[in-house]
Amino acid sequence: MNQAINGDPLAPIIIRMHPSDNVAVVANDGGLPAGTSLPDGLALQEKIPQGHKVALIDIKQDEAVRRYNVIIGYAKEDIKAGSWIHETRLRLPEPPALEHLPMATAIPPVEPALEGYTFEGFRNPDGSVGTRNILAISSTVQCVSGVIEFAVKRIKDDLLPKFPNVNDVISLEHTYGCGVAIDAPGAEVPIRTLRHLAQNPNFGGEVMVVSLGCEKLQPERMMPAGTIEIHREQRGTINDARWGDLDVVCLQDKEHVGFDSMIEHIMRQAEQHLHRLNARRRETVPASELIVGMQCGGSDAFSGITANPVLGFASDLLVRAGATVMFSEVTEVRDGIAQLTSRAASPAVAQQLIDQMKWFDNYLARGGVDRSANTSPGNKKGGLSNIVEKAMGSISKSGTAPIAGVLGPGEKLNGQRGLIFNASPASDFICGTLQLAAGMNLHIFTTGRGTPYGLAQCPVIKVATRSDLARRWHDLMDVNAGRVADGEQTIESLGWELFHLILEVASGKQTWAEHWKLHNSLALFNPAPVT
Amino acid sequence: MNQAINGDPLAPIIIRMHPSDNVAVVANDGGLPAGTSLPDGLALQEKIPQGHKVALIDIKQDEAVRRYNVIIGYAKEDIKAGSWIHETRLRLPEPPALEHLPMATAIPPVEPALEGYTFEGFRNPDGSVGTRNILAISSTVQCVSGVIEFAVKRIKDDLLPKFPNVNDVISLEHTYGCGVAIDAPGAEVPIRTLRHLAQNPNFGGEVMVVSLGCEKLQPERMMPAGTIEIHREQRGTINDARWGDLDVVCLQDKEHVGFDSMIEHIMRQAEQHLHRLNARRRETVPASELIVGMQCGGSDAFSGITANPVLGFASDLLVRAGATVMFSEVTEVRDGIAQLTSRAASPAVAQQLIDQMKWFDNYLARGGVDRSANTSPGNKKGGLSNIVEKAMGSISKSGTAPIAGVLGPGEKLNGQRGLIFNASPASDFICGTLQLAAGMNLHIFTTGRGTPYGLAQCPVIKVATRSDLARRWHDLMDVNAGRVADGEQTIESLGWELFHLILEVASGKQTWAEHWKLHNSLALFNPAPVT
Repeated sequence: MNQAINGDPLAPIIIRMHPSDNVAVVANDGGLPAGTSLPDGLALQEKIPQGHKVALIDIKQDEAVRRYNVIIGYAKEDIKAGSWIHETRLRLPEPPALEHLPMATAIPPVEPALEGYTFEGFRNPDGSVGTRNILAISSTVQCVSGVIEFAVKRIKDDLLPKFPNVNDVISLEHTYGCGVAIDAPGAEVPIRTLRHLAQNPNFGGEVMVVSLGCEKLQPERMMPAGTIEIHREQRGTINDARWGDLDVVCLQDKEHVGFDSMIEHIMRQAEQHLHRLNARRRETVPASELIVGMQCGGSDAFSGITANPVLGFASDLLVRAGATVMFSEVTEVRDGIAQLTSRAASPAVAQQLIDQMKWFDNYLARGGVDRSANTSPGNKKGGLSNIVEKAMGSISKSGTAPIAGVLGPGEKLNGQRGLIFNASPASDFICGTLQLAAGMNLHIFTTGRGTPYGLAQCPVIKVATRSDLARRWHDLMDVNAGRVADGEQTIESLGWELFHLILEVASGKQTWAEHWKLHNSLALFNPAPVT
Repeated sequence: MNQAINGDPLAPIIIRMHPSDNVAVVANDGGLPAGTSLPDGLALQEKIPQGHKVALIDIKQDEAVRRYNVIIGYAKEDIKAGSWIHETRLRLPEPPALEHLPMATAIPPVEPALEGYTFEGFRNPDGSVGTRNILAISSTVQCVSGVIEFAVKRIKDDLLPKFPNVNDVISLEHTYGCGVAIDAPGAEVPIRTLRHLAQNPNFGGEVMVVSLGCEKLQPERMMPAGTIEIHREQRGTINDARWGDLDVVCLQDKEHVGFDSMIEHIMRQAEQHLHRLNARRRETVPASELIVGMQCGGSDAFSGITANPVLGFASDLLVRAGATVMFSEVTEVRDGIAQLTSRAASPAVAQQLIDQMKWFDNYLARGGVDRSANTSPGNKKGGLSNIVEKAMGSISKSGTAPIAGVLGPGEKLNGQRGLIFNASPASDFICGTLQLAAGMNLHIFTTGRGTPYGLAQCPVIKVATRSDLARRWHDLMDVNAGRVADGEQTIESLGWELFHLILEVASGKQTWAEHWKLHNSLALFNPAPVT
């Protein structure tokens, strides 16, 4: 990539990602006016906004437009050198076929292990490690969420002060559980998501469920016997015999006479869990215990130039340190599937990637759309012409490691390490939810347009793609990757900085989202109908 | 219906809904043991739980089983008189065809108008009437909901005490707005739902929107020009020129430097709305200003015997008083569609009913299921064998009035009065949300198994189908319709009681859900894919 130069604010800064590209992106705040001379003498035919593309040579109608050395579209008309390549001037390519893809043909060499990096985490009975110490109350159905909310407030007021080592008490609220076609194809996705959310490492194995009683998602369906295997012997006899080891408060149980008895029952159970959670202490654990979920949202043309490549570099470092790193967002890798199948660690993993793409293609087709439904008005305003260009930027956060495994939506990691593709939709809330279900203990979120995204379940490090955003949102963005475009930092130096910040945040350092307690809702992915 | 007799708790009470029925329902708490002699001498072949059906005569394999004078199924095997008609002994009938239905063939006669009934409500600039006085903050996208939550807390702490006539400040939170296929078939449903929610009569026409900036659901798409028509002249100049009359705080706007500036902006706008809301006063308005949404959830076999018929009687009174009453839950009327089309006020309304059934049949089929996906384990435990039996009970809350109109999901009433079918899925949360969007200012919810359901946007009156539930949940249920089965009240007397309670609650009397502040989440109906 051409190195940008920091200097005169009027000096044009344009960024070409690959020598074969026939376009480059304008980096200057506020864009560049018509007539501006670029360093190689080319004059701009028209004003080009920041983040948008300029044609570096004449491009004839139907010729390919290349960025990242990838065809991001075909010219709908003749485009003169120095012109703005606006999304309306590009025709979207067909999605790559899912047959005859390269299968594990370019497995990247194993990089030298990074030894000695550690963080201070909460070791769980099942071997996983939390970065926070949270009591999470699960529910089988939305019906009970008002009662849980009431109870959580009371727990926080009356109980939590007695348990200073516990960071928070939260409800894993959702709108699933009843009024849904629970046996339809695809219904296993939201159900396993709820099951696995409850088992996130930040909750210390303390699974507590509030149920209504008559709902479709019965507790034993949400949490079949054997899914909770941790420290049975430490438990008292607080649990109802019906649920075995699982702690279920069922509001319709005959024992509940009056609202207070429901609240008191929930508080009594919560106190038992708080006792055990409060006994947890941070201890030094290897960086390999990190399970990092990566996401981008409110992307712009800089996402693929600054924040995502920086994150990709940090991801490679994490993989070298033995950690697990997940990337997601099916529609944002669909157009780069050949890059991924060739990087897969084995033909079997490559096939799993293809299977997930096929499933999602069908899911979208059933709803009458395709992957082009992904891009938002803000993406386009930020210079991303279409889903192909967005995808190339999105993929760059996966770094260069081999793809070691694939998870379907709502599935949970089962000891896999390295770089994992977690097949989630790109919706920020759904993706965050599915990464939490997979076992994420730390989240990194890059953004170009800016989002105040945060989660109650796990710390979120937010990385800005542009310095302008980082300056304005100085107390919402944790890292300014715009410094790469400004020439102040390299991808490598900022990648290392991010890697160290990840270890600090995992050890307890607060992110801005935590500071303000900005918590987005969980959003389940339910491909099945409601009833 | 056979009148039940209150007396010796061991005396068998069975309820037959129609003389043609070959089954009746056991009403006794705890059911009846094998060998019990029924009043006509029939001896029970086996223990029959409360709410479950007993065969009154021998029923041969493949013969019809009738309740409500409707075929609720066919015997899978020979069933002896006195046996338990369990759901596993019934074969589900085919759904009625949607062709050749009776179209407005049995329009009920207009009942005499009920004059002189009033309540104390908040008259709005557009003529609608609120039963509560609430500042509701809308959002275009889930991204901003953490920020709104932070702001709402600050508004409640710092501003609300200065505006004593305002009941509450709430966020109309949802998970839509981005990461969704916003141009897919069906996407108009969640979009119009959000638009119409903001205009609910309980919010006094004070529409305030928080937007991120880059989201797919742009403010002008959520609220196109002309959708907010009220009292423009009363407004100051607080609004951004881009949005015309609409008050939009856009977090990505360049003016926002730092988190505090976002919060302060939201608070400044909120204060303007609070000033106007605080000037509202309750005034005496006719009962015809009520817009009542009816729902049932956690239904049992008593739903169709006690609570729903009582509600149906009250619904008829409301219609006679000129009010608007909505019933919903497509899968719970599908099997009784012929009753509804014949009761439709015109063939056009009958056709609209059929169109909504067809749309939902297709929606379910696309997801690989049909209307039988509706029933829950709790329904079955409560004696409801299948969706046909559940539907017959559910429909009874619509009373006997002509069906004056039909709303598609997310549509808003436009002056229609009388009994309206609001075509929502049966999911409690989605149905409540869609009825709010239609303009509901009071909600009535019947339940047999028990649910702590409540809404922040509007008062919810909860009606128990059984005395046992009403006794145990004495501070959650507002009305005990079990008194009908106990013989203490008639449907008529309790229907009048409910009618009067509706007027009181509309005038400000608190329901139990309001007392405890039990608020279920809004849940949008999105038939389109996520991306």
